[in-house]
Amino acid sequence: MRVADVPDARITAPTDALVRVLLAGVCGSDLWMYRKMAPSERGFRMGHEFVGVVEEVGAEVTAVRPGQVVLAPFRWSDGTCEFCRAGLPTSCSNGGSWGGALDGGQGEAVRVPLADGTLVPVPVGPGDPRLVPVLALADVLCTGHHAARAARVGPGAAVAVIGDGAVGLCAVLAAARLGAERITVVGAHEDRLELARRFGATEVLKARGDAAARRLLELSEGRGYHAVLECVGTGTALRTALEAARPGGAVGYVGVPQDGEGVDVRTFFRRNVTLAGGITPARTYIPELLPDVLSGGVDPSPVFDRVVGLDELPEGYAAMDRREAVKTLVDLRR
Amino acid sequence: MRVADVPDARITAPTDALVRVLLAGVCGSDLWMYRKMAPSERGFRMGHEFVGVVEEVGAEVTAVRPGQVVLAPFRWSDGTCEFCRAGLPTSCSNGGSWGGALDGGQGEAVRVPLADGTLVPVPVGPGDPRLVPVLALADVLCTGHHAARAARVGPGAAVAVIGDGAVGLCAVLAAARLGAERITVVGAHEDRLELARRFGATEVLKARGDAAARRLLELSEGRGYHAVLECVGTGTALRTALEAARPGGAVGYVGVPQDGEGVDVRTFFRRNVTLAGGITPARTYIPELLPDVLSGGVDPSPVFDRVVGLDELPEGYAAMDRREAVKTLVDLRR
Repeated sequence: MRVADVPDARITAPTDALVRVLLAGVCGSDLWMYRKMAPSERGFRMGHEFVGVVEEVGAEVTAVRPGQVVLAPFRWSDGTCEFCRAGLPTSCSNGGSWGGALDGGQGEAVRVPLADGTLVPVPVGPGDPRLVPVLALADVLCTGHHAARAARVGPGAAVAVIGDGAVGLCAVLAAARLGAERITVVGAHEDRLELARRFGATEVLKARGDAAARRLLELSEGRGYHAVLECVGTGTALRTALEAARPGGAVGYVGVPQDGEGVDVRTFFRRNVTLAGGITPARTYIPELLPDVLSGGVDPSPVFDRVVGLDELPEGYAAMDRREAVKTLVDLRR
Repeated sequence: MRVADVPDARITAPTDALVRVLLAGVCGSDLWMYRKMAPSERGFRMGHEFVGVVEEVGAEVTAVRPGQVVLAPFRWSDGTCEFCRAGLPTSCSNGGSWGGALDGGQGEAVRVPLADGTLVPVPVGPGDPRLVPVLALADVLCTGHHAARAARVGPGAAVAVIGDGAVGLCAVLAAARLGAERITVVGAHEDRLELARRFGATEVLKARGDAAARRLLELSEGRGYHAVLECVGTGTALRTALEAARPGGAVGYVGVPQDGEGVDVRTFFRRNVTLAGGITPARTYIPELLPDVLSGGVDPSPVFDRVVGLDELPEGYAAMDRREAVKTLVDLRR
């Protein structure tokens, strides 16, 4: 992990916007890459969570203008294809994602393709402190929300959240916002579980695997939970989630699956458990969630528990890797 | 497989009904047992699909009376517990299923526990030919319907059905009834695929595994199907179903999983595919489907392509095992 000079970001298509980055986030999926990627001379530019100021727009861009503060979801999308119209911009026929050979969000500026379909104007100034929670809408808060929606969380629901990382914590916020009556969080870190309580968890459990599933069943009088939000991405976590679901219940899977361990349908066939989720269609959820974030009704900002400048980014990754930080915020305004 | 005398069925609880069987069906799950069960001196009584005439009721039974023709779903349920009230009688707190040491549906008479919650009166006489399609509501038609409901089949949907057995064929009927625009059936038998066409399939494919998934993607311009109904119960079929689902689409899984082969969430995470289904809550669906079956609007009776008397039941199983019969009907009126 190194900070390096790359060619300046610039507009190359009339539908592009050039965005000067104000804040960027380090995602759990960035961390997976950080851990797994082989050293590379050429490098791979990182980052897909950012808010910034529009510096320039292509001739065909009409939805944003220079000077506006904007939020980018973690993929670009045209907003007009059949999948975008169906609310699934992550499957946009013309979509894509930052990083690699393209501009990364963890940089000074980013070319945003399909700016009209992608960017969301945020009605605050570039110095507004609310841009920190707004940044969470680029990915992590929408991911937690997707887990809750996929698992059909609604008023009165008993919800279990598997994972106390940034996604799990945001899933707690989302479940509470949707009216869950009971929210039990399964995690491994005292401090994160404490934050889960602040976010609305009614119970926390330090456990994993079979023991976690057993405890969740005990806590629900053997019935299981209406909704289980899988926010880790391992086979073990997914099996725990499926075991802890109530008959007729649902598992919202949003942890990016890492180990390829399969799930055995026999274990939940008789309970009619639904497995739904996947990569969050953030662009679809942002208009629903942004007002609550701007009003302070939903405040995910505590998940950003390490703030660095761009030059300190390698240490920001290392802190997450050592589990000293839940999630690193890069503040380019400093 | 043998036909034997067992103690007469009789009422043992005030909530029981005693039903004289008119027609019984052989289920695909019976066939799995037929193939896998070790020889046994004591035996295991078979059958959980039957229609009959109420012969006697316990003191507390109020919903049915002697002389009435009734349909039994494949499990009994009280109709009052939290799961029954939520529409999931298969998870009834007091539910159970026939066969084994208890009366089997493939017999002359059956004790029906929790008769008020379980039995559905059918407003026809015991000799009515419509009892054949009504019998399909005990399990197989409701199973096909469950696949379609779980995969959210609605007007205009492009639906793929994996499997040309009785369940797959009934899934075609259900998808057509729910307004599917396109129904592609993947199977292995010319005659069954021909029946699928009669039931409403718009295309049929003789293929399996990777080749089937590839063809389904080709047929849908690479997009996949809104709904894929998995009506086989093998890991291969389930993987085919998951691969053939459109981004944002759903797989309805109702084939009783046989081989324990896991599914790898990585293969559908980015497409946001939902996996829903399980054992069908037949008792919930019967009131919705019965009128259409009685009116002839939905006619599953062709799936019963072998009719036997009770004494010929072993040959009825053997015919299914040899795939000479799709589904065997036992007619005790003969």
